[in-house]
Amino acid sequence: MKALATKFGWIGLKDFIRAVFTNAGVSSRDADIVADSLVQAELRGVESHGVVRLGIYLERVEKGMLDPHGQIECVHEGASSALLDGHNNFGAVIGVKALEVALSKARKQGVSMVGVKGSNHFGIGAYYALKAIEQDMILLVFSNASQTMPPTGGIRPFIGTNPFTVGVPAGKELPFVLDMATSVVARGKIIVAAEKHERIPEGWAINQDGYPTTDPVEALAGAVLPVGGAKGYGMSMFIDILSGVLTGAGFGKYVHNMYENWHDPQNVGHVFMAVDINQFIPLEIFKHRIDTYFQEIKAEPKAPGVDQILIPGEIEYFKTIERKKHGIDLPESVAEQLYTIGDKYSVNLDSAYYLD
Amino acid sequence: MKALATKFGWIGLKDFIRAVFTNAGVSSRDADIVADSLVQAELRGVESHGVVRLGIYLERVEKGMLDPHGQIECVHEGASSALLDGHNNFGAVIGVKALEVALSKARKQGVSMVGVKGSNHFGIGAYYALKAIEQDMILLVFSNASQTMPPTGGIRPFIGTNPFTVGVPAGKELPFVLDMATSVVARGKIIVAAEKHERIPEGWAINQDGYPTTDPVEALAGAVLPVGGAKGYGMSMFIDILSGVLTGAGFGKYVHNMYENWHDPQNVGHVFMAVDINQFIPLEIFKHRIDTYFQEIKAEPKAPGVDQILIPGEIEYFKTIERKKHGIDLPESVAEQLYTIGDKYSVNLDSAYYLD
Ligand SMILES: NC(=O)c1ccc[n+]([C@@H]2O[C@H](COP(=O)([O-])OP(=O)(O)OC[C@H]3O[C@@H](n4cnc5c(N)ncnc54)[C@H](O)[C@@H]3O)[C@@H](O)[C@H]2O)c1
Ligand SMILES: NC(=O)c1ccc[n+]([C@@H]2O[C@H](COP(=O)([O-])OP(=O)(O)OC[C@H]3O[C@@H](n4cnc5c(N)ncnc54)[C@H](O)[C@@H]3O)[C@@H](O)[C@H]2O)c1
Repeated sequence: MKALATKFGWIGLKDFIRAVFTNAGVSSRDADIVADSLVQAELRGVESHGVVRLGIYLERVEKGMLDPHGQIECVHEGASSALLDGHNNFGAVIGVKALEVALSKARKQGVSMVGVKGSNHFGIGAYYALKAIEQDMILLVFSNASQTMPPTGGIRPFIGTNPFTVGVPAGKELPFVLDMATSVVARGKIIVAAEKHERIPEGWAINQDGYPTTDPVEALAGAVLPVGGAKGYGMSMFIDILSGVLTGAGFGKYVHNMYENWHDPQNVGHVFMAVDINQFIPLEIFKHRIDTYFQEIKAEPKAPGVDQILIPGEIEYFKTIERKKHGIDLPESVAEQLYTIGDKYSVNLDSAYYLD
Repeated sequence: MKALATKFGWIGLKDFIRAVFTNAGVSSRDADIVADSLVQAELRGVESHGVVRLGIYLERVEKGMLDPHGQIECVHEGASSALLDGHNNFGAVIGVKALEVALSKARKQGVSMVGVKGSNHFGIGAYYALKAIEQDMILLVFSNASQTMPPTGGIRPFIGTNPFTVGVPAGKELPFVLDMATSVVARGKIIVAAEKHERIPEGWAINQDGYPTTDPVEALAGAVLPVGGAKGYGMSMFIDILSGVLTGAGFGKYVHNMYENWHDPQNVGHVFMAVDINQFIPLEIFKHRIDTYFQEIKAEPKAPGVDQILIPGEIEYFKTIERKKHGIDLPESVAEQLYTIGDKYSVNLDSAYYLD
């Protein structure tokens, strides 16, 4: 048996994922969105939200836990607000629709907020922020997620690592893309440490009894901690309140775990807030001001050993360029999953491999 | 000479501050707002933003650096957005006006965003959040501030500890008031450690050369660190972008330090985003859902040594009750300042003292 190739070209990979979803009964437009979101995560170096999620997305479709034919419905509408029910379609498909509504309302009213219920895991927040940036709009995106973090003072996972994302266009400089989980670190980093038999720094996680631990295996059985103690706890809560309590989606334990719950749809909630820059300051002046801001920060004196001061989103921007050029290297286990999935859905993986 | 009394009643204290401002030429309505904001900070236990700021506010008025007669002007208006120029009046006076505009627009449109330029230090974000909560509205408040934190990888203060505040009404439960600086801890805590000759934990601050320090004196000469590393840096930046770059206010070094710059108005910027709950879900259902959420969190198993799981805002709520009842104990140095100020502005401090 030949060793499995693990290097993929991003376009071939996207085509492969799109074809798999199409063969799983997803419309080609929606298959395109979900494939795009997964590959973009991979390009940006957010591997935890990349093609490694393809298998679970498919499994939820197969088992009737996610409805690729769910018709997104606008259940309430104000001049600058809307509430969508995603009717259990893919998170990214619903997210893109919500983003469109948010952008068009903001363009008319100055600012808008679209809430979403009945959704699923929507991938990386940056996916939506970048689309808004292309249209010169500022976007705030929040989503809740299933339980992985304890409240401050608690032991057991109760809130999610609910992501907080802000996108802002710039002029000559790179755009600002802050896209962060409200945990100290992504749970994925603890999984990696466990696989490598390495300790993790104190402060990342607690064990099942609520004590700090540096053992990744104990940490995975325990809980990831919110960033900055009560501050991250409060941020994760406010995101849960807006995305879940306010929209009618799940919140706390009512956001169902995509890997563990095979009885209920996830019922994830999201919020998209869009701001039309021109309603505050002419776009060209804004772009000039933000360029100045970024240039001045980047020119600041650096701490010992630091090469560059970075703007949020910069690391991911350069990873994207690099991976588009030199291919995406997947762990062998993920490449194997793709191979098995291709087999099952009759899509050939061959043309997805990276060619020098 | 008799030892100075240091315990004050909150109503007497507010009357005293109001009278001082009135004698300094501030209208009685505006004097009331600023007094209210300072005393509320004191009641909530945010002493760093309490009456200790009275002296500097007055000094800026005296030296013509803050204009208590500045007419707040709406310079741009969309259906759900507005941009105000505070014309260098008090931050709290401008903030209250901006809040009113935000609430009234959100009530009509579902959601709103009001940007502010030409403002000053606006005190604690909770002051505005609580006013929105009284009207059953959700509020997000951001403000930039003068330079105190380095960017990640930097050494020198470049961004402010820009506060992030969210207020959400509840039903039977206490409201949610997340009101946080984007630094690990308030600079005030480092000042206290320095006075007590105590070390500070690693991670709070760096010294002038960019190295981590546990010496509070070195830390004060260096810089406070953003909460959660690059995450807090990114949050402080996005607040600066919305409050400053977008509104036309100062940003980065163009937000002038209230203690050090005696040539320029501060030109602080703020943003108020209001959300009308009823545009998403009937208010009564929302209140029921949020009560459930809080009750379920508070019922979670607790870590060893933890008494209670708290909701953001709870600590400050109970401090307020306690201090309204048993008085506000000020440090002797602050009580002395009040005495001197009373003398200067011909207002008797006597009736502000707490009586058992
Ligand atoms: N859908 C969900 O349920 C869900 C849940 C959690 C996280 N996520 C996603 O996971 C992703 C990863 O989150 P994370 O918190 O691990 O990301 P991270 O910690 O790697 O990065 C967070 C942010 O900080 C910026 N950053 C990092 N280092 C920096 C530096 N030195 N200077 C300036 N900026 C810097 C990054 O550009 C990014 O915007 C995000 O894309 C998020 O949307 C999704
Ligand atoms: N105007 C300005 O320029 C400016 C700048 C910075 C800060 N501030 C103000 O300073 C104040 C203090 O900020 P801070 O960051 O030092 O506050 P903090 O760290 O004391 O509290 C931050 C938030 O966390 C909550 N909290 C704390 N412990 C908790 C726990 N165990 N469980 C649940 N919630 C908990 C608090 O209720 C609060 O909402 C705020 O009022 C802020 O608006 C103002």
